[in-house]
Amino acid sequence: MQGTGQAAPQAEYAPTDRTVPTRAPQRASYDREAVHAILDEGYLCHLGFVRDGAPVVLPTLYGRVGERLYVHGSTGSRPLRMTGAADPGLPVCLTVTHVDGLVLARSAFHHSINYRSVVVHGVAYEVTDPEERRIALDAVVDQVVPGRSADSRPANRKELAATAVIRLDLQEVSAKVRTGGVNDEPEDLTLPHWAGVVPVQKTYATPLADADLAPGTELPAYLAELTK
Amino acid sequence: MQGTGQAAPQAEYAPTDRTVPTRAPQRASYDREAVHAILDEGYLCHLGFVRDGAPVVLPTLYGRVGERLYVHGSTGSRPLRMTGAADPGLPVCLTVTHVDGLVLARSAFHHSINYRSVVVHGVAYEVTDPEERRIALDAVVDQVVPGRSADSRPANRKELAATAVIRLDLQEVSAKVRTGGVNDEPEDLTLPHWAGVVPVQKTYATPLADADLAPGTELPAYLAELTK
Repeated sequence: MQGTGQAAPQAEYAPTDRTVPTRAPQRASYDREAVHAILDEGYLCHLGFVRDGAPVVLPTLYGRVGERLYVHGSTGSRPLRMTGAADPGLPVCLTVTHVDGLVLARSAFHHSINYRSVVVHGVAYEVTDPEERRIALDAVVDQVVPGRSADSRPANRKELAATAVIRLDLQEVSAKVRTGGVNDEPEDLTLPHWAGVVPVQKTYATPLADADLAPGTELPAYLAELTK
Repeated sequence: MQGTGQAAPQAEYAPTDRTVPTRAPQRASYDREAVHAILDEGYLCHLGFVRDGAPVVLPTLYGRVGERLYVHGSTGSRPLRMTGAADPGLPVCLTVTHVDGLVLARSAFHHSINYRSVVVHGVAYEVTDPEERRIALDAVVDQVVPGRSADSRPANRKELAATAVIRLDLQEVSAKVRTGGVNDEPEDLTLPHWAGVVPVQKTYATPLADADLAPGTELPAYLAELTK
């Protein structure tokens, strides 16, 4: 983490009361690399915060830079406005989930899904440092398509003024993972119901180019690679 | 809605302070059929609640029956325990999001995603009526694979005792949808960056049968249809 001003990380996040699940503890992990891998495979999170005592959960994009997550949005959007107004910051919960398969057991009770999720608890702070804001905005774009920020026009002064950025440090973090097959009761194995796993995949279809591309503009290699 | 004890619904949910977005109001919808369609295409939600003043967002399965959403889980899991203990119910926010495409603009600022989401605000109540619990548990299984609950062993007394069910009525609800192409500034159209939309698709791979299927058990038609 040289040069980022962040301390060298331990291999695991320290569990806390909030990150130790009340059940299925064998599915929980605090492994830093496992957490990073789940976060890096996604770009959409569900961000929770409290407004007037009630929970609010909104889908939004994020970017990871080392041990920091960034979320951006209009300066007029609710959580970003609340963070800017909040001192010392806005308590949030940021969750990322990938579905890998439908687990169909012989018994209704043992139906499940295979998934990988990361839940981050913490306090979000507005980022005001221009250089950190630039890094954060690039990270959010590159989280969706790696390499994309270098192949687009950077935000200008007016756009930057309209954009709020908040940061959430990866400190109170856990991953939860279910893999494998069905877990039916031994006495159910002779039932005539089909059982197994239906894998779920996320794929990209052929990119649809804008009608007004500048002459000679080709699909870049990083997009051809992503969607092949 | 005959026989369900629910009133005949209006075509639109009534907007409230919580469901009118602070920005991009043209993307918001209160249309009941649109909301149902988004909910029915999914089975995984992100459920938010407040614990010790801080937000918690957990991925979980849901099922829709008319104007009611059901979530189930172990009686030992945190939100379900909190709902059972809470009187009069637990304030929650339940959000479902589908990503349809990556919107890559020439400018970093206009990058976006095409998506459809539904956000439900309300108070969740524990369901104790045996018949409603049965309907709810079937709905959660059928939300993942339509028709599946009829082709599995129903929960027995012990399993039912271990399962909590909570209900959230569809009252304070909004959908938010972004569709279409890039929205670049006119002066950016001559920039040499590729721009367009990369469609995102969720697909199923070939079902993997459990090794111990009872002799003669074939892949049922509803699964062959789902994964073809």
